Amino acid sequence: MKKIRVTVWNEYRHEKNEESIRMIYPNGLHAVIGEFLAECDDIEVTLAALDDPDQGLPDSVLDNTDVLLWWGHMAHGDVKDSLAEKVKNRVYDHGMGFIGLHSAHMSKPFRKIVGTSGNLSWGDEQKEIIWNLMPQHPIAAGIPDHFILDVEEMYGEPFTIPQPDALVFGGWFEHGNIFRSGACFLRGAGKVFYFQPGHESCRSYYNPYVQQIIKNAVHWAAPATFGYDVSRGCPYIRPIV
Amino acid sequence: MKKIRVTVWNEYRHEKNEESIRMIYPNGLHAVIGEFLAECDDIEVTLAALDDPDQGLPDSVLDNTDVLLWWGHMAHGDVKDSLAEKVKNRVYDHGMGFIGLHSAHMSKPFRKIVGTSGNLSWGDEQKEIIWNLMPQHPIAAGIPDHFILDVEEMYGEPFTIPQPDALVFGGWFEHGNIFRSGACFLRGAGKVFYFQPGHESCRSYYNPYVQQIIKNAVHWAAPATFGYDVSRGCPYIRPIV
Amino acid sequence: MKKIRVTVWNEYRHEKNEESIRMIYPNGLHAVIGEFLAECDDIEVTLAALDDPDQGLPDSVLDNTDVLLWWGHMAHGDVKDSLAEKVKNRVYDHGMGFIGLHSAHMSKPFRKIVGTSGNLSWGDEQKEIIWNLMPQHPIAAGIPDHFILDVEEMYGEPFTIPQPDALVFGGWFEHGNIFRSGACFLRGAGKVFYFQPGHESCRSYYNPYVQQIIKNAVHWAAPATFGYDVSRGCPYIRPIV
Amino acid sequence: MKKIRVTVWNEYRHEKNEESIRMIYPNGLHAVIGEFLAECDDIEVTLAALDDPDQGLPDSVLDNTDVLLWWGHMAHGDVKDSLAEKVKNRVYDHGMGFIGLHSAHMSKPFRKIVGTSGNLSWGDEQKEIIWNLMPQHPIAAGIPDHFILDVEEMYGEPFTIPQPDALVFGGWFEHGNIFRSGACFLRGAGKVFYFQPGHESCRSYYNPYVQQIIKNAVHWAAPATFGYDVSRGCPYIRPIV
Repeated sequence: MKKIRVTVWNEYRHEKNEESIRMIYPNGLHAVIGEFLAECDDIEVTLAALDDPDQGLPDSVLDNTDVLLWWGHMAHGDVKDSLAEKVKNRVYDHGMGFIGLHSAHMSKPFRKIVGTSGNLSWGDEQKEIIWNLMPQHPIAAGIPDHFILDVEEMYGEPFTIPQPDALVFGGWFEHGNIFRSGACFLRGAGKVFYFQPGHESCRSYYNPYVQQIIKNAVHWAAPATFGYDVSRGCPYIRPIV
Repeated sequence: MKKIRVTVWNEYRHEKNEESIRMIYPNGLHAVIGEFLAECDDIEVTLAALDDPDQGLPDSVLDNTDVLLWWGHMAHGDVKDSLAEKVKNRVYDHGMGFIGLHSAHMSKPFRKIVGTSGNLSWGDEQKEIIWNLMPQHPIAAGIPDHFILDVEEMYGEPFTIPQPDALVFGGWFEHGNIFRSGACFLRGAGKVFYFQPGHESCRSYYNPYVQQIIKNAVHWAAPATFGYDVSRGCPYIRPIV
Repeated sequence: MKKIRVTVWNEYRHEKNEESIRMIYPNGLHAVIGEFLAECDDIEVTLAALDDPDQGLPDSVLDNTDVLLWWGHMAHGDVKDSLAEKVKNRVYDHGMGFIGLHSAHMSKPFRKIVGTSGNLSWGDEQKEIIWNLMPQHPIAAGIPDHFILDVEEMYGEPFTIPQPDALVFGGWFEHGNIFRSGACFLRGAGKVFYFQPGHESCRSYYNPYVQQIIKNAVHWAAPATFGYDVSRGCPYIRPIV
Repeated sequence: MKKIRVTVWNEYRHEKNEESIRMIYPNGLHAVIGEFLAECDDIEVTLAALDDPDQGLPDSVLDNTDVLLWWGHMAHGDVKDSLAEKVKNRVYDHGMGFIGLHSAHMSKPFRKIVGTSGNLSWGDEQKEIIWNLMPQHPIAAGIPDHFILDVEEMYGEPFTIPQPDALVFGGWFEHGNIFRSGACFLRGAGKVFYFQPGHESCRSYYNPYVQQIIKNAVHWAAPATFGYDVSRGCPYIRPIV
């Protein structure tokens, strides 16, 4: 079986600098994500972090990644523009899948790839209920009509994203907000999924539905079988007839 | 100035049969809607009700309607299939706008026009907060990022509509639900807007933002200036080159 | 392996009544379609025709169909409204996939399910070139940037469909027309694909790319793994919080 | 009447450097576009060119532009990244409309705003027929089902744009290609329209339908009446309930 080569990229600073976060994700939240993804026979996981050499994504890794998961928060500005550009080009020209997690809404790659400021409203931690708007979508496979996260950071509308190609999940927050919590964007030859849960101080990546959704998303976002060279740029074409 | 000819169709039975509803909408909720629409210089209003002759929509009215608003609830089944078919054809073939209000999600015309079962979840009356997801959309003109309806009937996801062409508003409900509360659908040569507030026992049609949204929607849904005969069916076409 | 249960429904009259058509599709075009679909290990094929008992789709067949392919042309009017309604409900409430082939754009099920008049322009047979607009879509897997059909009936814009959820293929016709030739629509719990080639007097169903696209479409349209009862109608919901 | 402040930006080099182009557009193609736009009572036109001070768009101009039209071709690389970034931010955060003309598909602002590589296929000049796919759209107001451009540069699919919010026009090219020629993208608080005709050596900006479409597009793309501060970034929100 050909495996989906997944790289889970994490800023990985909260976990090193804050005891309270380290207690939740001792080896980084990417380790937890990588662990549950590795439960899938057809997925092969690489972990990467901002403070690794080449910011965790040397060409040797990026060029061999089918789906890239991205978690960043405090250090969006530290990510090199050139790296964000490389990530974008790999999505556009090679169909790499990109899954933006939680505060990745403000990351350089997400904003460049999708074409968005990433702006949203945010607030304190509170109860969230995630609603399944598209049971027919592969990313919602096996997910009930709703499930509850006891504590998540509030992310609220207006979220200034383009209208997604598929709006799969919506979030309800205890103190009055809603959010487009799970949204698909087709960009270039690639597929992008944004998924809102995952604040560092919450335990969402241990939730079985969150895990199932991320597994589903990886399968959905894996590159298609292209019938022609999608990285060919702007070719000059002779008359066909 | 050419006026937009608006017909506000109401089932108009709750208001006649239930004292508590009549106290809110003494002449029917369509009368209230018609009144605030008539504040617009460029709108001309006709009222219509299910128990009027020809179920309120003889051809002489329907064929001279630019935008039809539809409120129905208990008596969806009493509406003649042939009337629903006529409404659909006027949208498809002549570009009449159609605005489905509240429980019109289960009305025959809405379901036929849009292509949906209209199914949703529902619950008791509670506080609702309506969020503005698309400030750039004409239907959201002048609407703040959110506004509050103290009491509305709960309508919740999953709402089995097709993905809308524009999802303009989302609703938050006090007891845990969210809803795609304002959604645009382009169908045939026409434009359709569904707007969730408006339970008969609530006072939503007196809310100034609800009124503004419905005014905006009428202007948005008015038929386009067609550059060719959009009612021409399936013409046979000779070679152009 | 759980197989996808596919039913190929054909009006099957041209082939019986016209020698020239029978020479192309001796046992009906559904037989040819069924044959190439059966090359897939995970597909199980049933053939059905309008003049079979129960118009080919008794409940015992329909209720055990995962994906229904529909080819109709001259006899759209002969299909019972009640059957079209059943097909629609199986898509909406059970997630059956529906693939409308060629002149199925005017069939009762397609029009009801999608919410469209089905109107288009049409013309004489000519060369068609099909362009791949979405190489990242599963239905385009393995398909080159374009391929040529030497002879097809001309179907042209304006095609009064709703904006599709995905516009996968576009058609170029020799004498000046274009067409949205391959389009996905999500409706209810189901997935719908419309694919334009397949006039009875042409040989498109023998084209390997057409065959590949239809195989891909069957896999894409197979019902999702639902995480809750999508046929539950309009349930009353108690407060969650 | 409040006027729509339109700035027509042109690279304006072909016209200065090539006699054959100057004969078609003696004062630059932006002058021709500006002239027909100025026929609209509610439009106020400013012309701008790459070789003007501040590349034609000092803040004093950009910050007072409601809709920006952009024509660029050979000198995309000369446009400063900082200017492209400013244009993007004005669309995202202030709702400025952006109309990308012809080879602007590869311009820095278009690619940044929309989130696209801008890649397409291209070929020699030939006959084009533009088809009206959405007669109900404001940008198609008054446009027939099709019109012919005797000579245009061929732009062909696959055009690696995101699926547009509205695909209004499709192009047929004589030698076998099709193109998504008129497409709307909603980005940030702004509206974007891409329109394919307008090669420097052709005369498309003199075509009355092309002119009508660009006039329509300016009216469509003008900023909405915002009901809250859409440039507020990522505000922290206190509990509403």
